[in-house]
Amino acid sequence: MSRLRAAVVGATGIAGQQFLATLADHPIFDVTILAASPRSAGKKYLEAISTEAGSVQWFCGEPLDDRFKSVVVQDAAKMDARQVEVVFTALESDAAKELEPVYAQHVPVMSTASAFRMADDVPILVPGVNPDQVPLIRAMQAKRGWRGFIVPNPNCTTVGLVITLAPLHRRFGVDSVLMTSMQGVSGAGRSPGVVALDIIDNIIPYIPKEEDKVEAETRKILGALAGDSITPAEFRVSATCTRVPVLESHTESVFVSLKQPATLDEVRSAMVDFGTDFVGLGHPSSPRRMITVSDDPFRPQPRLDRVVEDGMTTTVGRLRECSVTPNGFKYVLVSHNTKMGAGKGALLMAEELVRLGYIG
Amino acid sequence: MSRLRAAVVGATGIAGQQFLATLADHPIFDVTILAASPRSAGKKYLEAISTEAGSVQWFCGEPLDDRFKSVVVQDAAKMDARQVEVVFTALESDAAKELEPVYAQHVPVMSTASAFRMADDVPILVPGVNPDQVPLIRAMQAKRGWRGFIVPNPNCTTVGLVITLAPLHRRFGVDSVLMTSMQGVSGAGRSPGVVALDIIDNIIPYIPKEEDKVEAETRKILGALAGDSITPAEFRVSATCTRVPVLESHTESVFVSLKQPATLDEVRSAMVDFGTDFVGLGHPSSPRRMITVSDDPFRPQPRLDRVVEDGMTTTVGRLRECSVTPNGFKYVLVSHNTKMGAGKGALLMAEELVRLGYIG
Amino acid sequence: MSRLRAAVVGATGIAGQQFLATLADHPIFDVTILAASPRSAGKKYLEAISTEAGSVQWFCGEPLDDRFKSVVVQDAAKMDARQVEVVFTALESDAAKELEPVYAQHVPVMSTASAFRMADDVPILVPGVNPDQVPLIRAMQAKRGWRGFIVPNPNCTTVGLVITLAPLHRRFGVDSVLMTSMQGVSGAGRSPGVVALDIIDNIIPYIPKEEDKVEAETRKILGALAGDSITPAEFRVSATCTRVPVLESHTESVFVSLKQPATLDEVRSAMVDFGTDFVGLGHPSSPRRMITVSDDPFRPQPRLDRVVEDGMTTTVGRLRECSVTPNGFKYVLVSHNTKMGAGKGALLMAEELVRLGYIG
Amino acid sequence: MSRLRAAVVGATGIAGQQFLATLADHPIFDVTILAASPRSAGKKYLEAISTEAGSVQWFCGEPLDDRFKSVVVQDAAKMDARQVEVVFTALESDAAKELEPVYAQHVPVMSTASAFRMADDVPILVPGVNPDQVPLIRAMQAKRGWRGFIVPNPNCTTVGLVITLAPLHRRFGVDSVLMTSMQGVSGAGRSPGVVALDIIDNIIPYIPKEEDKVEAETRKILGALAGDSITPAEFRVSATCTRVPVLESHTESVFVSLKQPATLDEVRSAMVDFGTDFVGLGHPSSPRRMITVSDDPFRPQPRLDRVVEDGMTTTVGRLRECSVTPNGFKYVLVSHNTKMGAGKGALLMAEELVRLGYIG
Repeated sequence: MSRLRAAVVGATGIAGQQFLATLADHPIFDVTILAASPRSAGKKYLEAISTEAGSVQWFCGEPLDDRFKSVVVQDAAKMDARQVEVVFTALESDAAKELEPVYAQHVPVMSTASAFRMADDVPILVPGVNPDQVPLIRAMQAKRGWRGFIVPNPNCTTVGLVITLAPLHRRFGVDSVLMTSMQGVSGAGRSPGVVALDIIDNIIPYIPKEEDKVEAETRKILGALAGDSITPAEFRVSATCTRVPVLESHTESVFVSLKQPATLDEVRSAMVDFGTDFVGLGHPSSPRRMITVSDDPFRPQPRLDRVVEDGMTTTVGRLRECSVTPNGFKYVLVSHNTKMGAGKGALLMAEELVRLGYIG
Repeated sequence: MSRLRAAVVGATGIAGQQFLATLADHPIFDVTILAASPRSAGKKYLEAISTEAGSVQWFCGEPLDDRFKSVVVQDAAKMDARQVEVVFTALESDAAKELEPVYAQHVPVMSTASAFRMADDVPILVPGVNPDQVPLIRAMQAKRGWRGFIVPNPNCTTVGLVITLAPLHRRFGVDSVLMTSMQGVSGAGRSPGVVALDIIDNIIPYIPKEEDKVEAETRKILGALAGDSITPAEFRVSATCTRVPVLESHTESVFVSLKQPATLDEVRSAMVDFGTDFVGLGHPSSPRRMITVSDDPFRPQPRLDRVVEDGMTTTVGRLRECSVTPNGFKYVLVSHNTKMGAGKGALLMAEELVRLGYIG
Repeated sequence: MSRLRAAVVGATGIAGQQFLATLADHPIFDVTILAASPRSAGKKYLEAISTEAGSVQWFCGEPLDDRFKSVVVQDAAKMDARQVEVVFTALESDAAKELEPVYAQHVPVMSTASAFRMADDVPILVPGVNPDQVPLIRAMQAKRGWRGFIVPNPNCTTVGLVITLAPLHRRFGVDSVLMTSMQGVSGAGRSPGVVALDIIDNIIPYIPKEEDKVEAETRKILGALAGDSITPAEFRVSATCTRVPVLESHTESVFVSLKQPATLDEVRSAMVDFGTDFVGLGHPSSPRRMITVSDDPFRPQPRLDRVVEDGMTTTVGRLRECSVTPNGFKYVLVSHNTKMGAGKGALLMAEELVRLGYIG
Repeated sequence: MSRLRAAVVGATGIAGQQFLATLADHPIFDVTILAASPRSAGKKYLEAISTEAGSVQWFCGEPLDDRFKSVVVQDAAKMDARQVEVVFTALESDAAKELEPVYAQHVPVMSTASAFRMADDVPILVPGVNPDQVPLIRAMQAKRGWRGFIVPNPNCTTVGLVITLAPLHRRFGVDSVLMTSMQGVSGAGRSPGVVALDIIDNIIPYIPKEEDKVEAETRKILGALAGDSITPAEFRVSATCTRVPVLESHTESVFVSLKQPATLDEVRSAMVDFGTDFVGLGHPSSPRRMITVSDDPFRPQPRLDRVVEDGMTTTVGRLRECSVTPNGFKYVLVSHNTKMGAGKGALLMAEELVRLGYIG
């Protein structure tokens, strides 16, 4: 079977590079177009990411695959999306707002941008978490007259939270969530990103817009499809998002109150068992476990657990009862913000949409 | 007026050094005895804290005062407490359990150890926070037949929390507290302390016993004196305590639910106004404000705010309503774990007990 | 005696803020003008350094002095230098090249910029190090027809090196120097500065232009005034400059070969005795010792030694013989890059130029 | 062909774990014995490295292989070395001094300890660097009456230095070396290792004994076999070894003076070409290049380059001429201290000794 042609837009930035790192040798998708801003257009990719002094600005742990080095980068604004079967976009929000609908007229767009996340007819899809919201894609296509569609992934801080809340919400109902995040600096990107002078030996207790995104996205993702839109889950979410001197992955301290009583064992089992069917599909980018529950009281740790399952599992530890709220539990999670929380998460969702017939 | 003679016990360790740093040129207390373990006894202080290779193991930002360098260190187990009017102890818990009662037979003991914090007849005193519990000292003396007494300060993670909850509890009543701490590595001391290999680019989500201490101490400190013991405050506290790559001071993300409705302004004012009378006493180690409320959304930051008021004020920022819990508010605080949270906090309490006639 | 009026140009940037921190309550200079780019001009200083979200971008450890908060910032390009007796500039190199000569037509300019460091008629003055080069100022004034002058301080990495080489060069002659620097991130400023993602758990082995500056400036500063220019010192300097995850101050590993034989004691004494006369002048910003030699084998350490003498002394440790080169010695130094290495160093030089009659 | 039975002694410590990580599924060696101190003896391995609280103290990036978990740990002092064909030891120096000769009576011992490095009849073997010294093994066996032998690997700081000096020494002759190291904290192990409080935002400019080891070992490894001992290379080496806040791998700034003139291209080629024959042997643990020369001026960086070739290549960058010394060159190298610099380096050497008929 021939592979599906794919474009990566915003390919020179750090988020775009994460797409390339995961798509380098992919059994389903064949990256045939790299696109970026006019500044990069016309250059070979390796040249486009190199400084005049000869420094290659490639920021992924995986090496840059040889196949991409000499691909001539296209201008994202002029790219003809009809040349591919799917577009992966890693654009800033403003550019995404403008360009993604252009691509979506023709082909599916899997996006890491926030531009369309809160649109009524657009589902935020998280692999294994909200398959019931997939059909909203058809409504979007009908309403907008598109052959393609836009599927954004959530904010990187939302991902681990919804993955761990999903089994609890399904089985016991979630009543309220109070979350404090300790987020790695890679989440801020590089332009300018977090300045070292601000974060070494320090914590920054505020990330603009982050808390609102987490609160709204969580309720939407765990909400219910009702006709042509999604009714957000009724539970309440309150977050305090902080930046810490950690390179990669987000750590979250969660206090959750359930609607129904549950024992600690039941909560633990709900997490362990979550997503068994989905991971059983064996998608190329899939972890073997959606949630890895650790009984070591000193886990999860971002540096140790972000490498587990190549950053595609969410590690939960310190799961225990919390006597303060009704049916209360508390735990700490580590989620890889630039793997499951970004490009590779979007890729896994694309793999599932191929299986479901939405792509290709 | 002549100064009160003071002993510092456990003087060679990091916590003891913090006592010396604050007592170097004190208007009320005159340190006349330094005591430590038998290994240090008989040596001059400078020698006792130096390695064979000539490296001086002094860990405070303030320089070691010349007056202490040639003082001959006594064996803590043989020290005659009657030679002083007050003993400041910075001992490990086991040693404190054994030695503090011996000293307390004769003189007041201000302690940073946890050994007696939860004893029924022992108040955990926090400067400006629970003056109503001071009289329990007399009950302790009567019951135990001591001329002196033991007053421990709280765990360093408790200090900032109780200082910020106190005004809320007094004015509106606290119903419940959910707190996530991000604690600096100095809280673990140096033997062995936190190993760099564990914490650089990482978070450790568990500090043994810390959460239990915070929960129990908070309720005791904000409780009510009832005869010969303290009735803990009735509100519930749940904490998740983590270690982060920050050198000094603890950052805490707090979600609090009040018993009575309050506006954001009222909560803010309660914090700003808290302790005005106490700081007005002008104790040598007193901050000018018990709580410093910042309206900069990017504050408090541990590296920037721990130096304010020489670590004796608690800085609160990101104060806002929290819709999840009834009468809910959330904020972030920074408290200096080795200043107000340790020796200098105990010293400030001693200054107040001198004023109240309990010392000297 | 009335104080001398001073302007601080580039006052909103991090280097300009360092000037303000040191000039807040200065006995000789009275800051009457703050100037910056057109973007800040017309705003009150506090407003000029605040973000829309209300975050005050003040980056010094010292608090922002109240006296500056409501001063209206002038446009540096339109500032009338005749309103002051001295201008302190903290400009980027391009802006310095344009504006400093304009100011210097009228008044002395003390600069942290590199623009004029290598000009033939401009001395790079380091307090206590090269007083013999001060008279070059008169040549500069004659040649350029200025009433004022420009005196740049050296690159921050040069400062500690020349201060420690000066006594050796004077007494024994320096034959060659091999130096490896480990530089703090504050040296790169904040726009964009060093990105946290690049430096946590890492070293960057290259700082563009830095090595050339160190090599050329060191030889010029330790050179000899010959008529209307300076003959660089004849010794050779080779540097490798790296960036490390340290906030402030530069650590340098130095291997030096002397022209004449010297014992370790003689080298040590030369350093200890260096600058006694200069520090004896008691300038307000002066350290008590130009060089602090430590015999603790674990010193100097940047975090511990940068605070000594408020960053105005250079700490030398690990001084020992090096058998590889003739008359070889090696040592490690710590120099505070944003104190003696920047604004406060320039201020100390200004204090000396007042004494010598060049300013005021 | 059946694999050779191997014992790992000191298996519970961090250095021993590194042996297990590399030997988990090895084509030549089959780990049949795990040995450690009496405290661990008799326990299953997983139990031996777990705390009472259930925390598994496994410190390698690679997961602990299932095959080792239930192996019962033997007492290193009672282990019968005749049950295996080779012993890999990761012991503290004192224990190594006592136990390694006992094992060596019967079988080859590949050691990461320093105990026998400077013994006259013991070669320090570095893969691909000093094959000419291998025959000294026979002299050792003859002199000591052993069937086996001891082959230590060098100090981790020596490894990258000798690998990069070897091609220069062979081709041009090395006259002198001045080196400043910036070493990762993993080099200090974990008991107690480097305390976080000492190294965050800091540099420690001294590592006891390290400089002496580097200087002596480098000259021995690059020396010449002369009868029953090694004549050290005649060149001079001077090192300043520092500890920096980097987790893994050592960065070294090297200034080298050659005996014969060489162009920059020739030096570069010598490094690039070095070890081609050796890596061509295709040993399981071999890198594809002994030295990876980077032309990116911002490389090598420890965090980025330690992962290249799984830590088995030495990355050199910033290679340039140095005008200070005759035929001078300078460069920066990154070498992985716990891969090529420890267990996996010893394993690669063992693979070569199998090929040469010294093991098995």
